[in-house]
Amino acid sequence: MARKIFSEPPCPIAGTLKRAGEWWSILILRDALYGITRFDEFQQSLGIAPSMLIKRLKTLVADGFLERRRYSEKPPRDEYLLTALGRDFRMVIIALYAWGNKHLSPDGSSLLLVDAKSGAVANPIMVDQESGKPITETDHIFVSGPNASAGVIARLDRRKPGKK
Amino acid sequence: MARKIFSEPPCPIAGTLKRAGEWWSILILRDALYGITRFDEFQQSLGIAPSMLIKRLKTLVADGFLERRRYSEKPPRDEYLLTALGRDFRMVIIALYAWGNKHLSPDGSSLLLVDAKSGAVANPIMVDQESGKPITETDHIFVSGPNASAGVIARLDRRKPGKK
Repeated sequence: MARKIFSEPPCPIAGTLKRAGEWWSILILRDALYGITRFDEFQQSLGIAPSMLIKRLKTLVADGFLERRRYSEKPPRDEYLLTALGRDFRMVIIALYAWGNKHLSPDGSSLLLVDAKSGAVANPIMVDQESGKPITETDHIFVSGPNASAGVIARLDRRKPGKK
Repeated sequence: MARKIFSEPPCPIAGTLKRAGEWWSILILRDALYGITRFDEFQQSLGIAPSMLIKRLKTLVADGFLERRRYSEKPPRDEYLLTALGRDFRMVIIALYAWGNKHLSPDGSSLLLVDAKSGAVANPIMVDQESGKPITETDHIFVSGPNASAGVIARLDRRKPGKK
């Protein structure tokens, strides 16, 4: 896939996709958020070729999502732990989960996000941390920030009021 | 990329990635959520090859994210409008935005989500719709749902309490 778009100053959405924008990487992060840490566990969970898993883990470490820690010297074995930056990716995983559960699970879900204590199924929505107001299409819009590139500004300018 | 994992009964996270799991598709949805509807606008915004844009738009229409509507007969011109399913993808886009702004924008953001009326910058967090409780790693966990495949159950079982 052409990476041209990513040579521009970053849109934070495009930038995030660049860092974690491959299925395998996102699924590895999903598993890491489940608590999986070891190579063979990732491999079994994902059914991924070892060479691909090595490559994706290396990139996730280089990009700061995971850190590698040796847990056995003989034989030498490493595990992969989420960093704070990697843990923050949880919101993306939960957003993917929520969309998938709503739109792809007509026969009942295979996965549920629940309250750890009560077991009640959670229904994640987004709100503004300060005001508590739900983030909606009418109440919240994207605007260019202080560091916006010409590309970001032009993209937002294409949005003409009333054109639907 | 191998699609093997997606022949299993769906994990909703993997299922969502299958539907929208390419950079271009997600960036097209981003632009659609900005209000962009027309081929040439997508093309200018993304700097994407026309052949690739045609392909991705076709897939997004087939998967139900966008619908195609003719807005001019002479010359024949179509536009692409978000469906309800496509609009729901907004939470994923905002989660990508929030992560990117936090971790990839040390020099100030290029893009801001703001309250449409007040202009105040929003800080999106996830809460449970019913209880209003923030979704956190300690308070909310993933468990297998009624329609879980053996793969989903095995994956969740690899999460052993206290193993960190």
